[in-house]
Amino acid sequence: MTDKPWAALLTGSRQAGPAPVYHLEAVDQTGQPRQVAIPGESPLTIRVDGRDIATLMTLGSHPEELALGFLRSQRLLERLEDVASLEVDWAREAVEVRTRQGVGLPGWDEKASRLEVSGGCGQSSLFSRTLENLRQEKLPRVQLRQSTIYALLEAVTPLNVIYRQASSVHCCCLCQEERVLMAVEDVARHNAADIVAGRMWLEGITGADKIIYATCRLTAEIVTKVAFMGVPAVVTKSGMTRMGLELARNMGMVVIGRAETGRFLVFNGQDQVVFDALEG
Amino acid sequence: MTDKPWAALLTGSRQAGPAPVYHLEAVDQTGQPRQVAIPGESPLTIRVDGRDIATLMTLGSHPEELALGFLRSQRLLERLEDVASLEVDWAREAVEVRTRQGVGLPGWDEKASRLEVSGGCGQSSLFSRTLENLRQEKLPRVQLRQSTIYALLEAVTPLNVIYRQASSVHCCCLCQEERVLMAVEDVARHNAADIVAGRMWLEGITGADKIIYATCRLTAEIVTKVAFMGVPAVVTKSGMTRMGLELARNMGMVVIGRAETGRFLVFNGQDQVVFDALEG
Repeated sequence: MTDKPWAALLTGSRQAGPAPVYHLEAVDQTGQPRQVAIPGESPLTIRVDGRDIATLMTLGSHPEELALGFLRSQRLLERLEDVASLEVDWAREAVEVRTRQGVGLPGWDEKASRLEVSGGCGQSSLFSRTLENLRQEKLPRVQLRQSTIYALLEAVTPLNVIYRQASSVHCCCLCQEERVLMAVEDVARHNAADIVAGRMWLEGITGADKIIYATCRLTAEIVTKVAFMGVPAVVTKSGMTRMGLELARNMGMVVIGRAETGRFLVFNGQDQVVFDALEG
Repeated sequence: MTDKPWAALLTGSRQAGPAPVYHLEAVDQTGQPRQVAIPGESPLTIRVDGRDIATLMTLGSHPEELALGFLRSQRLLERLEDVASLEVDWAREAVEVRTRQGVGLPGWDEKASRLEVSGGCGQSSLFSRTLENLRQEKLPRVQLRQSTIYALLEAVTPLNVIYRQASSVHCCCLCQEERVLMAVEDVARHNAADIVAGRMWLEGITGADKIIYATCRLTAEIVTKVAFMGVPAVVTKSGMTRMGLELARNMGMVVIGRAETGRFLVFNGQDQVVFDALEG
């Protein structure tokens, strides 16, 4: 046994995945060659007990966390204890998850050859049911200091490593006050969120005293994934949608948008932000 | 009958959908109230012959085209003639599609209560099969003039109407040379592409002499959707991923990235770009 409870789940050693950055020779508007970097993107099929569940397109840096976070956020797995083993096989572009007692949650159809499940960006048949559940949910009421937001923005800035080289990725960070516990980049914003959720699950990290920082716009789906993590505050450099706002209001999630050095907008939870760093 | 062949499909009159832009009072970093606009986002459940297929989160401006484009890009409907009727019901947040002979394509499981189908951003069980098909496909070989790229960028700039008010949306335009035939914004980049595909299908527009302009990064999924439209050239202000590049190379799609006034990079099809507007 190990002091990392989740290590026992990873039956294979962690294989080197695909390269996160790929270089090519493009041609610019003057016809001159230019070296360009773009992010990797690989299919990764999530398999549960020998069945294909979904194929995710991912940067590939955190396949274990992605598989678990995806299964959790789709509400296909509710307890980590139900997972007997998890193995990544990049040669087959697959993650094999074995469960102890099978998956018997809504969406699992014993007669179908695959799970009726879908995924990202709100194009999902499970998603509408999830929305109904979330409308009932309440997050713990927290306070967020302006000085923490500023310090957090400084802390996350250097962590957009792939983005600075290759752009075309989104970053999601799990923070405690301004301390960044995990920073993930992926070609899909919902994958980045699922990876953070998967890591929290594996390491038994609770969400109530955490903040999620994300570079992406906060659609209903992203707000939903943050709520599943139990995290009551989210900061984005981007904006949000009406449905994202409605969900955040219902659940009491503090939402800070358009956040860049020295400026931000409080989209929700205005009375939970403490303006302790006002200038002048 | 009508001169618009697709009009007959739309059995109900087009209902007013949800408002595309929503206004709220946020608070800025100084604690002062600020009027902010954010895009609408509504669930829209695609139903085929009485069955729920998927719930898409959409801005809601083109539900008919979105439903048809989604069913087409998921390869659930191959011919528009198979559609008997299509009706949008915003009160139920649903689009009802009735087919003439049912849907008998891969992915349809007669025993399951819903289609095994999924959607956006590569989180899809159907997507991997689609990728295999596309690796065989070849697009018509076209030439793209530098002057056309510049003129197209000027033409699309004023069309980001929702984005300029509310941000958090992506735009997809169907162009013939620099003439914009259709401009769509949506909270999900894949929805915007599906809407363009749906409109092309409804109006019988072929893709071989068209160009797609998109504000989003070109992941495998977006390149796939452009290829399904039969469009051999794509221009984005963003970048692309390795899998998007691989697909574009296999199919011979011209890809122009990082395109802004006066500058761009040719990611693929360098020998198909004619530099006719070189300065100096």
